[in-house]
Amino acid sequence: MKNTQVKLIARPVGAPTADCWEIIETETPELAENQILIQNQYLSIDPAMRGWMNEGKSYIRPVKIGEVMRALGAGVVVESKHADFKAGDFVTAGTGVQEYAILDGKEAVKVDPSFVPLPAYLGTLGMSGLTGYFGLLDTGQPKEGETVVVSGAAGAVGSVVGQIAKIKGCRVVGIAGGADKCKYVVEELGFDACVDYKVGNLRNQLKEACPAGVDVYFDNVGGEILDTVLTLINLRARIVICGAISQYNATEKPVGPSNYLSLLVNRARMEGIVVFDNAANYGKAVKEMAGWIAQGKLNSKVYVAEGGVRAFPETLMKLFKGENTGKLVLKV
Amino acid sequence: MKNTQVKLIARPVGAPTADCWEIIETETPELAENQILIQNQYLSIDPAMRGWMNEGKSYIRPVKIGEVMRALGAGVVVESKHADFKAGDFVTAGTGVQEYAILDGKEAVKVDPSFVPLPAYLGTLGMSGLTGYFGLLDTGQPKEGETVVVSGAAGAVGSVVGQIAKIKGCRVVGIAGGADKCKYVVEELGFDACVDYKVGNLRNQLKEACPAGVDVYFDNVGGEILDTVLTLINLRARIVICGAISQYNATEKPVGPSNYLSLLVNRARMEGIVVFDNAANYGKAVKEMAGWIAQGKLNSKVYVAEGGVRAFPETLMKLFKGENTGKLVLKV
Repeated sequence: MKNTQVKLIARPVGAPTADCWEIIETETPELAENQILIQNQYLSIDPAMRGWMNEGKSYIRPVKIGEVMRALGAGVVVESKHADFKAGDFVTAGTGVQEYAILDGKEAVKVDPSFVPLPAYLGTLGMSGLTGYFGLLDTGQPKEGETVVVSGAAGAVGSVVGQIAKIKGCRVVGIAGGADKCKYVVEELGFDACVDYKVGNLRNQLKEACPAGVDVYFDNVGGEILDTVLTLINLRARIVICGAISQYNATEKPVGPSNYLSLLVNRARMEGIVVFDNAANYGKAVKEMAGWIAQGKLNSKVYVAEGGVRAFPETLMKLFKGENTGKLVLKV
Repeated sequence: MKNTQVKLIARPVGAPTADCWEIIETETPELAENQILIQNQYLSIDPAMRGWMNEGKSYIRPVKIGEVMRALGAGVVVESKHADFKAGDFVTAGTGVQEYAILDGKEAVKVDPSFVPLPAYLGTLGMSGLTGYFGLLDTGQPKEGETVVVSGAAGAVGSVVGQIAKIKGCRVVGIAGGADKCKYVVEELGFDACVDYKVGNLRNQLKEACPAGVDVYFDNVGGEILDTVLTLINLRARIVICGAISQYNATEKPVGPSNYLSLLVNRARMEGIVVFDNAANYGKAVKEMAGWIAQGKLNSKVYVAEGGVRAFPETLMKLFKGENTGKLVLKV
């Protein structure tokens, strides 16, 4: 098969530019024993990708220069030398940004697109949804009646966090950029309120939306928004640090939360999470979330970008420009 | 009795200056039923005092303008109308910065200066020691063999934290300002190492002193030191935010820890503490620490400033100038 691949050929300084990528065509090799050939249909486009492009120690090794860019994909098995898979099976796997991927069968997970559409397995039932599920429930520990604030509320993780917090009986307030996203967050996702950080005074708006203060803050964005929420937290608040998309392309040292002493005054906690730590419990979580989807309690909207793998470089930038509402995937 | 009192008459901008204080002489009034008259012998001088001088919501109400400055004192009962106290009893209590204090007996705690010297009840067996005890053990949760780093290591809280961490079998590294303090921390308190933040590269020195990384960081100082330690923490590290003496006199917004995303990469936690939350367990903690003092495992050095209550304004500034080694008290 002819295979189009996107390789990382230079580490970005600031926002990733076109010259970070090389797009090439190769032929897929023969399958070895236990391998499967997957035809990608959707690629998961994630803020974390920006981090994987950097050199240096992190929670996962960097993508090497000259390597196919790391990505999760959802697709169909077209050939199998693994006993558990046959042509026609739908799977998700760490395929990388390419049309076809050859992997050991044990690296792929079978999914059922008759239950939810295939790209939802990259979103609500994939890494994004699992990040929200474990980050909110295990680290945020929301209690019924508490106020939960989520930034990036219209994004892949934030939208799941807020909806699960609603299921748990919390008052849920989103933070998002633009009236359309805020409308979506309240009307389609069922948040109690959503604050547009692009207009007006963020602190005043949040204060009004959170009359009883903030008990749990799930942060996807960092920067000034985190610093502002710190001034509104309650005694023993929990701040979940999931990401900091506002800082990922910074070429200077990121801005730290200057109001962090609010943690002291309020005996509050700020804790980082990485979804991979929960791998042993993915199955249980996916089952519970699938139930919520079936009951209509969990909306799993996907924002599908077109253009195939060649459109990967500009699709990734949509995240940092805030152009997507819901989980961003690239149709292959 | 003639009573010299120090009252707060203006809120400071930056470091507290002489014009924040008024020193007056009054006569002590007659005792009412259940009251006791305490003659202060030592006053506890604490970094937290700077925060109490600010207006606005915090973990405790601000000292009012015109009010005697809040302080813990240790002294002797000279007159009692409370059944549990008699003249000659030694007590600690929230006396304020004055020579004599009249309080309800239930606000005072009897202490025994034949066991440890009276000022130790303001230090290791007082709020400073209790802050270190609960902050380290409950929030820091050090495990045997882990590396614990403590800033303000020669100070009242830091010195207790490090010594308790040694008792718990940890590798303990202090951070302090100046060769004399570092020497004291290693030779008299028994830390494994102490880094002088005033000379050389802090990160390199810390890295060398912590070859296995940092599992628990107990922060008394904030600012650049916190930011540097964040780059050296291990997976699931615990950072205890006890104070930020480097920031208390800042007239501009304090600097936030720009490396806070290390919490995410390392799934680490940063949590604020206030000692008052543990009031129900003070007795148990004092008993355990008194045992360690008796066994020679806990050195309870006190730095005694002279000059009586009139010297309070300049004594307070010793903290911010880093002039004290061990718990700072003012002899009345």
